[in-house]
Amino acid sequence: MDRSVKVALFGVGAVSSMIAKALLQKKGVEIVSAIDMADDKVGRDLGDVLGLSYKLGLKMVKDVREAFLGVKPDIVIHATSSSLEHVYPQISACLREGVNVISTCEELAYPYHKNRAIAEELDKIAKQYGVSVLATGINPGFLMDTLPITMTGPCLEVKRIKVTRMMNSGKRRIPYQKKIGMGLTEEEFKEKIDRKEITGHVGLDVSIAMIADSLRWRLDDIVMLPPKPVIASRTIQTNYTTIEKGSVAGLKSAAYGVKGGEKVIELEFISHTEVEEEYDLTEIEGLPNLKVKIEGGIHGDIGTTAMIINSIPKVMNAPPGLHTMKDMPIPSATTAEINRYIKS
Amino acid sequence: MDRSVKVALFGVGAVSSMIAKALLQKKGVEIVSAIDMADDKVGRDLGDVLGLSYKLGLKMVKDVREAFLGVKPDIVIHATSSSLEHVYPQISACLREGVNVISTCEELAYPYHKNRAIAEELDKIAKQYGVSVLATGINPGFLMDTLPITMTGPCLEVKRIKVTRMMNSGKRRIPYQKKIGMGLTEEEFKEKIDRKEITGHVGLDVSIAMIADSLRWRLDDIVMLPPKPVIASRTIQTNYTTIEKGSVAGLKSAAYGVKGGEKVIELEFISHTEVEEEYDLTEIEGLPNLKVKIEGGIHGDIGTTAMIINSIPKVMNAPPGLHTMKDMPIPSATTAEINRYIKS
Repeated sequence: MDRSVKVALFGVGAVSSMIAKALLQKKGVEIVSAIDMADDKVGRDLGDVLGLSYKLGLKMVKDVREAFLGVKPDIVIHATSSSLEHVYPQISACLREGVNVISTCEELAYPYHKNRAIAEELDKIAKQYGVSVLATGINPGFLMDTLPITMTGPCLEVKRIKVTRMMNSGKRRIPYQKKIGMGLTEEEFKEKIDRKEITGHVGLDVSIAMIADSLRWRLDDIVMLPPKPVIASRTIQTNYTTIEKGSVAGLKSAAYGVKGGEKVIELEFISHTEVEEEYDLTEIEGLPNLKVKIEGGIHGDIGTTAMIINSIPKVMNAPPGLHTMKDMPIPSATTAEINRYIKS
Repeated sequence: MDRSVKVALFGVGAVSSMIAKALLQKKGVEIVSAIDMADDKVGRDLGDVLGLSYKLGLKMVKDVREAFLGVKPDIVIHATSSSLEHVYPQISACLREGVNVISTCEELAYPYHKNRAIAEELDKIAKQYGVSVLATGINPGFLMDTLPITMTGPCLEVKRIKVTRMMNSGKRRIPYQKKIGMGLTEEEFKEKIDRKEITGHVGLDVSIAMIADSLRWRLDDIVMLPPKPVIASRTIQTNYTTIEKGSVAGLKSAAYGVKGGEKVIELEFISHTEVEEEYDLTEIEGLPNLKVKIEGGIHGDIGTTAMIINSIPKVMNAPPGLHTMKDMPIPSATTAEINRYIKS
């Protein structure tokens, strides 16, 4: 493509602000409009909303039609909600305007498990309007689905897959520390679990469904365990708060897929202040057995930002329809001007 | 697909014999013919040639036309040579019969570097006859190209990529040990290098070109270093031979890609009897830095066999043309009947 890729932002929260700032550093791509429903954002300059020291000359708007009036974007970067039902009208509105979509919506990363009807409808609309839609991120999107699926490529047999993400939460951004309940008493943590204010890692079921369908495994069940608090063995100060000994230092989130009475896919997410070694580990029991370790792990915010941006050309090059990572070309970085990766 | 996939073998040597035996264990796939030019194979039953204790009722033939006379295969598994020029007439003959091809040919894994004209011709023929062709294996095909490219997916910047394959050659099959010169004197090793009887790891340049093109890096040069012997510090007995102290225990093969005067892609293959820890390691210098280690490494023969077999549905599902791993859907295992992975 011999001109810059035109990107619209749909939802400008914590994650999409990071994506927007990273896009501003990239060449061959420009942000042409920004949408958010929040009253405290609409009408303001995007630069202000991102906390930049300069204006971007882009007034934030509330509505897709309004956003696309002046300049039709090539692609929307959508980041509003984890819920497929919630994002469905937003994304279908973009598709109906003939614009491609990349979303951070966890449930959309593999929607056939949660709501096949919505998935099929989105696929139909995308095909009708000749555009593509994909949801991705570091997870769902990479660590617990794309990478373990890829690692089964050199396997003649696969009996069991386990993925473990081990992360020291004390090093992460404050909203994240808050989200996983750090510093709460065990009682407070459990109340927040009951009120679904703490959800643990969203999308483990989505990744399990993607792996299973990729391997053509018919699972009897996908079980999501409620997040368990990890209790601090000593008092520690993070950039967010003081974690008193005996209070919540973080959590463990786990889910598994069952086939023939056996746990054949196990995903475990462990994030607390006392994690000493950070890593992402994929273990495959099969022929051969494989143990693949990302030493130090992948930083979630950077990883998600990169997966979204690097997917821009892949989505624009894809045939029309709803895509998932399991059927997309292998991931890769966009280190040059982004438009150079797009077939004209 | 509601019937078995029909496979023809083209070339029945060491690697394709392993593939054939693995295929015989798989469901939803059948071998319908076998081609080899060697006089000591033509006319014999494939079961005999594979060293099985039973006949397969398949007489080996010398020629594509003859092989496809009775039953037209869906796909040919081709394993005859590392050389693109050598395999070109063989593969184009299959394509012209309207049959898909998966090849182990290292140079075909990314042919644009070595001989763009042949690559474009194969692409044209494949499209003309509505079929697909792909070359893959554990390497080129996975460890030093597909996997490192995939690992750049969560990276915002990539400055440098290094991949190291560390393998204890004493544990591998005898032809492999012989091929890398184990047990020779240093003098004999050097003579065999000069006569190109020892080539080191074939295809490092192919993997470098695939990585560079995937990232849109314009390399100034790809440098293949001549294989260096590793000298045994002690006498050791392998299943192949006795390696005397002071003789060749194995080799180091390396290659690198240069951009702006810097080595931006480095591939290193180290295989000798004194390797204590086996692994495959991808290191990315970028944002973030990544270190991905396959502990114990992936067994080359099993990995290649699996990559070839698992690519059958991917190639059959692909649009017509010449494909390379960098643009194929992510790898994945075929654990169920192979025909179930093929879109009808």
